[in-house]
Amino acid sequence: MAETDSVDAAVADPAETVFRDEDGYVSKEFVGLVETALEADDREATLELAGDLHEADLGDLIETLHPEDQANLVRLLGDAFDFAVLTELDDSVRARLLEEMPAGNVAEGISELDSDDAVYILEDLPQEDQEAILQELKQSDRLQLRRALDYPEESAGRRMQSDFVAVPPFWTVGQTIDYLRESDALPDDFYQIYVIDPGFRLMGTVALDKLLRTKRNEPVSGIMGETVHAIKATEDQEEVATTFERYNLISAAVVDDSDRLVGVLTVDDIVDVIQAEAEEDIFALAGVGGDAEISDSIVETVRGRFVWLLVNLGTAVLASMVIGLFDATIQQMVALAVLMPIVASMGGNAGTQTMTVAVRALATRDLGSFNTVRIILRETAVGLINGVLFAVLMGLIAAFWFHNEQIGGLIAAAMIINMLAAGMAGILIPLALDKLDIDPAVASSVFVTTVTDVVGFFAFLGLAAWWFVLP
Amino acid sequence: MAETDSVDAAVADPAETVFRDEDGYVSKEFVGLVETALEADDREATLELAGDLHEADLGDLIETLHPEDQANLVRLLGDAFDFAVLTELDDSVRARLLEEMPAGNVAEGISELDSDDAVYILEDLPQEDQEAILQELKQSDRLQLRRALDYPEESAGRRMQSDFVAVPPFWTVGQTIDYLRESDALPDDFYQIYVIDPGFRLMGTVALDKLLRTKRNEPVSGIMGETVHAIKATEDQEEVATTFERYNLISAAVVDDSDRLVGVLTVDDIVDVIQAEAEEDIFALAGVGGDAEISDSIVETVRGRFVWLLVNLGTAVLASMVIGLFDATIQQMVALAVLMPIVASMGGNAGTQTMTVAVRALATRDLGSFNTVRIILRETAVGLINGVLFAVLMGLIAAFWFHNEQIGGLIAAAMIINMLAAGMAGILIPLALDKLDIDPAVASSVFVTTVTDVVGFFAFLGLAAWWFVLP
Repeated sequence: MAETDSVDAAVADPAETVFRDEDGYVSKEFVGLVETALEADDREATLELAGDLHEADLGDLIETLHPEDQANLVRLLGDAFDFAVLTELDDSVRARLLEEMPAGNVAEGISELDSDDAVYILEDLPQEDQEAILQELKQSDRLQLRRALDYPEESAGRRMQSDFVAVPPFWTVGQTIDYLRESDALPDDFYQIYVIDPGFRLMGTVALDKLLRTKRNEPVSGIMGETVHAIKATEDQEEVATTFERYNLISAAVVDDSDRLVGVLTVDDIVDVIQAEAEEDIFALAGVGGDAEISDSIVETVRGRFVWLLVNLGTAVLASMVIGLFDATIQQMVALAVLMPIVASMGGNAGTQTMTVAVRALATRDLGSFNTVRIILRETAVGLINGVLFAVLMGLIAAFWFHNEQIGGLIAAAMIINMLAAGMAGILIPLALDKLDIDPAVASSVFVTTVTDVVGFFAFLGLAAWWFVLP
Repeated sequence: MAETDSVDAAVADPAETVFRDEDGYVSKEFVGLVETALEADDREATLELAGDLHEADLGDLIETLHPEDQANLVRLLGDAFDFAVLTELDDSVRARLLEEMPAGNVAEGISELDSDDAVYILEDLPQEDQEAILQELKQSDRLQLRRALDYPEESAGRRMQSDFVAVPPFWTVGQTIDYLRESDALPDDFYQIYVIDPGFRLMGTVALDKLLRTKRNEPVSGIMGETVHAIKATEDQEEVATTFERYNLISAAVVDDSDRLVGVLTVDDIVDVIQAEAEEDIFALAGVGGDAEISDSIVETVRGRFVWLLVNLGTAVLASMVIGLFDATIQQMVALAVLMPIVASMGGNAGTQTMTVAVRALATRDLGSFNTVRIILRETAVGLINGVLFAVLMGLIAAFWFHNEQIGGLIAAAMIINMLAAGMAGILIPLALDKLDIDPAVASSVFVTTVTDVVGFFAFLGLAAWWFVLP
């Protein structure tokens, strides 16, 4: 009992333990309390600790625990477990938790969620599990979710909430407010109401503050705004995110192909998309599979990185073959082998800088035909200027290092050539890939580093062969 | 006149010209029409084309034009130019446009904006320009803006809107709605109203949908939610973004150190921050200054990239010095010079993959003490597994290439060592930098590639020296 006692003494009063430490992580003390409660299978203590947490906090707590504790926590919370928490978890953690729950429980849990959260949880499940859960739902819910699941993956239809408030244009503000006061079938949160014609076609949008500022006898048709940014249900979430961001939207109507209102998107769903899309670019540029998560297993991680490394091996071998062409030259002057990685490395870095700016500018539509020529010229100039600056610097270093100013001149010339090539490749390759409808974030790096390696080695060793060895 | 005619014939009817092409860029046709109108100094045509554009669209149009046309467009629009457009422009474009306007005009323009937009435009201006503009404002506006500008850069106080709706707790829903209908000093858009005590201290928040659902005679204190996520005005915008994202907030109250309500933040301002922060990480990882923009000049661009390249030159020279240690070995076997970049390059790529995942996981708080050990072990294992896979592959390639299985064995052994080192450096270096409160996105790359270069060359050439040359 000594050990338990000391734990109790150390953790003291649960009510005084902060949930997050100052860096924003779930605090060690809080996790300790939860682990103790789980180990003792103490439902009451668990509920007291985790029963009232915000879904985002409970999600973070779950991800902090060991896998077996994660399932135990959910089991002990029982009915107090809000399934909305599942939308806050990494895919692999969510999948593991769902696997252990009977379909009936899952159906009960998600029937209490907004439709967008329910779809989010269902969409990644294996077909048969999805079907088993849908069968346990009541028919109206089942139809609603099936309709959403019929939209393409990552479309607005998958992300939208299908409960919304819609009124006819001749209703007055007063009638609308009375309806809102009396109806008990309203969505949990909403920011706009929609005006529709008898065929359910969207006529306009009324922001809630507008509704509150207007006198009761005014018809809603008089205060509705034209819905300029209606989203098609089949539209890709990335396009939707661009629209939300560009026009600073909080909420937007989603319509089907006949302009009938079918759902609502809210910016908090889109924030996750914006974050995910930016992250995809970061990962793609580094050659990591776009859906990599820190909770992935070793096998998933190896798989997610293997292809990129394989492609890189190909380009590295290609660069080596260029070196192989000059083996006789190297044999005569080993200093070349010592210095050649510097030329390639500087080119690779300069190329990566240009390429990264270009890839992001393409993704955010800041780079297009209107400024292509100017940016190509700028990047070429930047490559040339940095090339000259580092040529002088490295030329001096090499000349002193090897007591040989010819080697200094050689590396300087190669550096200018390679950094100029790096600037041009860094901008032209993403632009070309974009024109060919290939995602520049995924494919640019390989081509850019191939160019800078091959040009770097070829320029340096080729110049050396011509300069020193030929005569 | 022949040229003008053909332009007119090509561009046809302005009303039929789409603003954006299918890729989301401002269409060439539309830009053509605007350029024609600007060239003819035709105010009416300019107004017809650009007078009613959404601020985001007008912003994109301006960035699409040549610099001299940008200023002309703003001049021709005159009073029809909405200063909110300035918040949509790249910093350098905004600075250029503001430079050419008299302080009086700027003051008039920003006096019509929400306070957060006004601050955004003012904060980057040189001190004396800022002062000149503030002097032209009426006193109440001037005080409000000065107070916001007194908060630290990139704080919630800088980003917040200082107009909001606040009511005492004893007001009923009916009273509140009547107030909203009659007051003409309301902010343009709002999503919550706030309940405050006589000392202006925040007591709670009422979402507008809640207000609309509730009967008139209920006091607002009965329906207000506890404000769990109140933001301190001095809090950094990055922390604010984390809070908004974590708790899916649409809008949040901002309070001063005495918990008095001083402003409101809305998610659309925060979306820009989230986007900018993710972009900063992308750029930092690639060694580009965090505030790089595609509209930067050549000089700004060279400056933004120089430091990184200089640091990289240092690490490249260091790696070369390692090669230099083994020049005698290379002289005896030139194949080593041909193959050695492959070992370094594969290590660099594997290290970058691990590092990128680690940097993002640290930024999103998915990597912390709770899973550090597990992730370090995972990355080490992944490094070892990929190391063995590529060692076999490259060993075979090298053995066939040089008809020498000893070279195959040598590169295989070096590959395993370097990819293991890459996995460990890729995770340990970001973790260590984070512990030291250095931004891992900015500094990790240098250290990781130094490790993979040095270990790669040392393992490969060192093993070769010991294996082939010593005996």
